Amino acid sequence: MRFLGPHACEEALERGEIQTLRIAPTAWERSAKLRATARERGVVVHREPMDSLDRRAQGQRHQGVLGEGEAITFTSMADLLARVRERGAEALVLALDGVTDPHNFGAILRSAAGAGVDGVIFPERRSAQVNETVMRASAGTAGRVPLVRVVNLARALEDLKEAGAWAYGLAAGPGSSDYLQEPFDRATVLVLGAEGEGLHQKIREHCDGLLAIGMPGGIESLNVSSAAAVMLFRVVARRGNKA
Amino acid sequence: MRFLGPHACEEALERGEIQTLRIAPTAWERSAKLRATARERGVVVHREPMDSLDRRAQGQRHQGVLGEGEAITFTSMADLLARVRERGAEALVLALDGVTDPHNFGAILRSAAGAGVDGVIFPERRSAQVNETVMRASAGTAGRVPLVRVVNLARALEDLKEAGAWAYGLAAGPGSSDYLQEPFDRATVLVLGAEGEGLHQKIREHCDGLLAIGMPGGIESLNVSSAAAVMLFRVVARRGNKA
Repeated sequence: MRFLGPHACEEALERGEIQTLRIAPTAWERSAKLRATARERGVVVHREPMDSLDRRAQGQRHQGVLGEGEAITFTSMADLLARVRERGAEALVLALDGVTDPHNFGAILRSAAGAGVDGVIFPERRSAQVNETVMRASAGTAGRVPLVRVVNLARALEDLKEAGAWAYGLAAGPGSSDYLQEPFDRATVLVLGAEGEGLHQKIREHCDGLLAIGMPGGIESLNVSSAAAVMLFRVVARRGNKA
Repeated sequence: MRFLGPHACEEALERGEIQTLRIAPTAWERSAKLRATARERGVVVHREPMDSLDRRAQGQRHQGVLGEGEAITFTSMADLLARVRERGAEALVLALDGVTDPHNFGAILRSAAGAGVDGVIFPERRSAQVNETVMRASAGTAGRVPLVRVVNLARALEDLKEAGAWAYGLAAGPGSSDYLQEPFDRATVLVLGAEGEGLHQKIREHCDGLLAIGMPGGIESLNVSSAAAVMLFRVVARRGNKA
């Protein structure tokens, strides 16, 4: 998907539909705000000669600003909720609370695609976004997962709970129970926190329960993409590996 | 651990005990061979002023070449074999066949540390080595896993099988069985291949069996560090999460 001109790019950036932004030197200065938004959203910005942009735009008017998005289509929260209601006890959703590393984000989307989740929810702010690096790290599978960008993750969890899902936060600690004891026999949302900090306190409070992956080796935690893979495929295993 | 001077560094490099090499500008040219070896082994090389090296060497003679290694101690194959014999059906070993990405390598070591493996085997060539990036990606846990560097991975698998272990290669495809069906109730070696290519044919032939992680989502494979996490913690789950 290609977006031509500063206005189309600005709107598409807001919708999260751009992964790469190309700006001509003559348009560089006046695009400062656009570039700031792009940076904030993890979009890669290239400074590129005007004639190169002309070629990419194939003769169409672009005013020195061209945005590109892979065929990522975001899913609305309403569509995800409808799907969770429809799938009932088989529903599986992954919610990411501030995963900022694009390699981890990409690897997580790949695991989510493999596990056949109904959706991956992530916040618009303080999170990696679906950019070039993430697409590459997902080995191109990011487009196969229903992606839901939300303004307010806590609110999204409440909506999912209302739709019948059970929200489990992954957190090591005294209040957590062993993930191996959980049957995952109802609609499930797995909530994973950022590397380092883990789940935010506010998000933790919106979870129905906290789960921990037991570590015979005694270390505290796994890499967030490893933890996501273990949790997702535990649910798949518990549910008998059905599609 | 600190190694001073070109000879000490050369030997420590060969033993894989250096993660960072610091070379003064005046010693740069004559260290070309050392730098080439370092590069081949994934060791980070810094060009650094002589007085900075003087400070690091704390007055000791270094001739412009200083190597640093975190407290990584490698385990010998003989020690690993003895441990596998001793642990019997509880033994768990991870073998990496050409994992070259240091972030994946580090995340895998972290999962291996969490799962409490008896050792991680990787080849001296065509593999990431335990350098700064790997240490960082492992969140400092790499030092808690018995690491075994081998010249010949196929030979190491044969030795492990002779010690009573069963070697499972992870490979999607028609010849593979569902990993969920496997009880992992005997000494186990999990063999994981490189990103992209998967297991080398030669290594595959040394495995007792091939396992695949079922993907309800229909994609072909996971990121290698995600796959390692899923397999390792499946073994832990099957064995009742005992240390």
